[in-house]
Amino acid sequence: MAGTIEPRLLKGFRDTLPQDELLKATLERTLEKTFRSFGFVPIDTPVLEYAEILLGKGGGETDKQVYRFHDHGDRDVAMRFDLTVPFARFMATHERELASPFKRYHIAKVWRGENTQRGRYREFIQCDFDIVGIDHAGPDVEILMMMAQTLEALGVPGYTIHLAHRGLFNRFLARLGVEEHSVGILRAVDKLAKIGETGVRESLASLLDIATTEKVLEYITRSEDSDATLARMIELAGGPDEEAERLAAIMRMLSEVGVAEHIVLDPSITRGLDYYTGIVYETYLQGLESFGSICSGGRYNDLASLYTDRTIPGVGASIGLDRLVAALSEVDAFRINASIPQIVLFNLDDQLLPHYFSIALQLRRAGFSCDIEFVKRKLAQQFSRAEKLGAQIAIICGEDEHHRGVMNLRILATRENYDNLTIEQAIEKLSAFLHAAD
Amino acid sequence: MAGTIEPRLLKGFRDTLPQDELLKATLERTLEKTFRSFGFVPIDTPVLEYAEILLGKGGGETDKQVYRFHDHGDRDVAMRFDLTVPFARFMATHERELASPFKRYHIAKVWRGENTQRGRYREFIQCDFDIVGIDHAGPDVEILMMMAQTLEALGVPGYTIHLAHRGLFNRFLARLGVEEHSVGILRAVDKLAKIGETGVRESLASLLDIATTEKVLEYITRSEDSDATLARMIELAGGPDEEAERLAAIMRMLSEVGVAEHIVLDPSITRGLDYYTGIVYETYLQGLESFGSICSGGRYNDLASLYTDRTIPGVGASIGLDRLVAALSEVDAFRINASIPQIVLFNLDDQLLPHYFSIALQLRRAGFSCDIEFVKRKLAQQFSRAEKLGAQIAIICGEDEHHRGVMNLRILATRENYDNLTIEQAIEKLSAFLHAAD
Repeated sequence: MAGTIEPRLLKGFRDTLPQDELLKATLERTLEKTFRSFGFVPIDTPVLEYAEILLGKGGGETDKQVYRFHDHGDRDVAMRFDLTVPFARFMATHERELASPFKRYHIAKVWRGENTQRGRYREFIQCDFDIVGIDHAGPDVEILMMMAQTLEALGVPGYTIHLAHRGLFNRFLARLGVEEHSVGILRAVDKLAKIGETGVRESLASLLDIATTEKVLEYITRSEDSDATLARMIELAGGPDEEAERLAAIMRMLSEVGVAEHIVLDPSITRGLDYYTGIVYETYLQGLESFGSICSGGRYNDLASLYTDRTIPGVGASIGLDRLVAALSEVDAFRINASIPQIVLFNLDDQLLPHYFSIALQLRRAGFSCDIEFVKRKLAQQFSRAEKLGAQIAIICGEDEHHRGVMNLRILATRENYDNLTIEQAIEKLSAFLHAAD
Repeated sequence: MAGTIEPRLLKGFRDTLPQDELLKATLERTLEKTFRSFGFVPIDTPVLEYAEILLGKGGGETDKQVYRFHDHGDRDVAMRFDLTVPFARFMATHERELASPFKRYHIAKVWRGENTQRGRYREFIQCDFDIVGIDHAGPDVEILMMMAQTLEALGVPGYTIHLAHRGLFNRFLARLGVEEHSVGILRAVDKLAKIGETGVRESLASLLDIATTEKVLEYITRSEDSDATLARMIELAGGPDEEAERLAAIMRMLSEVGVAEHIVLDPSITRGLDYYTGIVYETYLQGLESFGSICSGGRYNDLASLYTDRTIPGVGASIGLDRLVAALSEVDAFRINASIPQIVLFNLDDQLLPHYFSIALQLRRAGFSCDIEFVKRKLAQQFSRAEKLGAQIAIICGEDEHHRGVMNLRILATRENYDNLTIEQAIEKLSAFLHAAD
C-alpha cells in the first residue's frame, strides 16, 4: 500500500517552494499597497464559469488552450484563461452596485493549456487593474502614473513605458485605404523590436505596395524627441482631431506630474487585440528588455458588450506576475531578504522547552519570526537546519543561562556572538540587526 | 450583437465585491503575520493534478464531489478539493529539499461540487498549517499556541479550543472490544454538541449493548475540571501509557505557556477522519458557537503514505476562511475599517486636474489611499460617489484655494470642515484623524 502512487505533477504545472512563495507574496503586497494608495480596490470572481461566458458563443482560436469540461450537472464549464473576460462579465452583473468611475485590481491564477515546449506554464498569476466607466485623459494619465509608482515601489533599477495610440493608428490606416489589412499590418508592426525594420518591411511588403509599406514604416519610426514624434503621427493620421488632442493632453499632463522622463512615445506599439481603441502601452525594465513587456494595456471603448447593452469604456493594464518575478530575480538589489524565520531558538535541554516557548512568545510579540528546535540534538545539526531555513540569528540558552535569566545570541552569517543578554537586551540587539539587514 | 450572452454565474459560485474582498484580505494578512512570526512559511501547489493523485487509486465517496475531467492530452485530471492531499504529495516530492521539521501554511481556493441547497458554496478558501517531520509534544503545543495567538490577533471576543486524543479513544474502544464499530461510534459521538447525550445514546444503542453504550457515554462526558477529565480518560482507556503521558505533558505545557485558560479537555471531540492518531481539536468562538468549529485538526502519524515509503508524522489544523469571515462579520468590533479609498479629491475645475494629481501623489506618498474625481460635476454627485466608495474624507480645492496654496478638508461622517490647510497641515490632520479611526 505505502508509496503506491507516483507523486508526479502535470506537465506545465509546478509547486512553489517557500523561498519563491515568499518572494511572490512580497511582490504582491507591494503591488497591492500602491494600487490601494491610488484608491483601487480588489475583487474576485469564480475560477469556473459557463464556457459560453468565457469564450463567447461559438468561441475562437483560444478554445484549444482553454480547460473546458462538463460538470456534475452536465453544464459546459471552463476555467478562466485571463482576468479581462471575467471582469467584463462582473461589470455587466454588478455595475449598478458600484461607484462610477470604478477602479479595481485583481491578482489571481489563470490557466491555459499552452505548448509547454516554449517554457510556458499552464497555470500562472495575472495582475490586472482598470479604471472603468469613464472615457477621459484623467484616467489615462492615472493608469500610467500608477504603473510608474508601482515600478518605483518595487525598486527596479530603471524602466521605460512605450506609449502609442490605436485610434490614431487606425485613422492613419484608413487614410491609406488599407483597413482591410489592418490585422496583418498590426501583427507585422508589433514585431519591430524583435525582427527590426528590415523584417517588418518584408512582412508588410507581402500585404501592401512599396509606397504604402514605406508610409507605414515612416509612421512607426520614432524620433528622439517626443514632440516631433507626436507631430508626425498626427500629420500622417490626417491632422488634428479629438484623438490627437487626447494624446497631446496626456503627454502634457505626464510632463506636469513628473512621469514624462519614463515615457517614450513609440508609434510601433499596437497591442494586437482588436479590443483597444485609445492609448496602448508596454513596459520594459532597463537591462532586462529580453524578458519582454512586464506591464501592458490600453484604453478600450466597450468592455462588456457581450453581456450588456450598456457601454462601459475603460483603461487598464495587466502584469504577468511570474514574468516580473523572473525578471526581478535577476536584480541583486531586489532579492529582498524575505527569509522566514529570522531567528531559531536552539534546544540545549528538553526540560527547558516551556522556557523556550515563553522566550519565543516574547520575540514573536516584538514582531520577529522565531522558530524553536523542539528536541535537543547536536548543535551542529541545529546550526545546519537554521542555515537551511535561511535564518539570520540563533539564540542559545542552556540550563546555566536560564538560571541567570539570560541568553546568547549568534549572528549566523558572521558568527559574531553576543552573550548573556536579558530578553530586553536581546530584543534591542535583534531590532538593530534585523532592521539594518532589511 | 451587444448583450447577447446573459452574464450568469454557475450555481454555488459567487463574485466577491470590494468590501468583502478587503475584509477577506485583511483577515488573511492577520493570519499570515501570526503564522510567519511562528516561523511558518507559505507554499503553493497546482490547482489541477492527476485525478489519481488527488483521489487515490479507485477513489471513494468524495469522488462525486470532485471536479474531474480529461484535459487536452486526455489526461485524467481533477481540481483540488482540499489542501491536505496536495500537501501530502508535495512532501513526498520535496521532503529532501526542506528543513526538518518543516512548518508550512497554505491559503488557497478549493472546489467541491457539493449540494448547494444547504447554503454551501462550491468554491471556497481553505487555510491549512502543519508541522511535519516530528512526533513530539512540542509541536502539538506549538500548534495550539499558534491557534490561540491567531485568534487573539484577530481580536475575537472569546474562544475555546476543545481538545481530545484519538489514540486514547481508540485504545478505549479496543479495551471494550468494539473496534469493528469504531467508524459508527466516532460518527455518533461527533454529534454530541448537535443532538445531545440522548441523541448519542440512541445512535450508540443501535450498534452496542446497553453497558457498552453507557461506558462510551461515560468516556465522552467531561468534568468541569480538566485534571479530573484527564484522569478518567486515562483510567477508562486502561491506565497510563505513552499516549496518556503525551496528553498529560501537553496539558502541563499549555498551563506553563499561559494558553490553558482557553483549552477545554473534551473527550467527545473525535474528528471523523481515520487519518488522526494523536490529539484532535475544534475551536468555537464565544457567542458564535452556531457557526461550528472555525479551526480544527490534529496529529497524524503518516501524512504521505500513498506517495512514499518514508513515514512523515505531523500535526496541523485547517481554518475555513469563508466560515470565519461569516462569523466575524457578526462581531461589531471586528468590522475593521478597511475601507478604500480613505480620501476623495473633489474636482472643482477641470483645468486643475494636474494640480489634483500632484496633491494626490503627495497624499499617497504619505501613506494614504486617495481617489480623484477626474471630471468636474455637481458637488452633490461628488459627495454621493465618495459615500458609495466608503471614503472618510473629501478634499476640496478650487481656483481660489489653488492660488493661495491651500485646500479644504471635510470629514464625511460628521461634516466637520477644516479650511485653508497647506498640504503639510492637511497631512497632519489626516494622520491624526485616520489613525484615530483605525
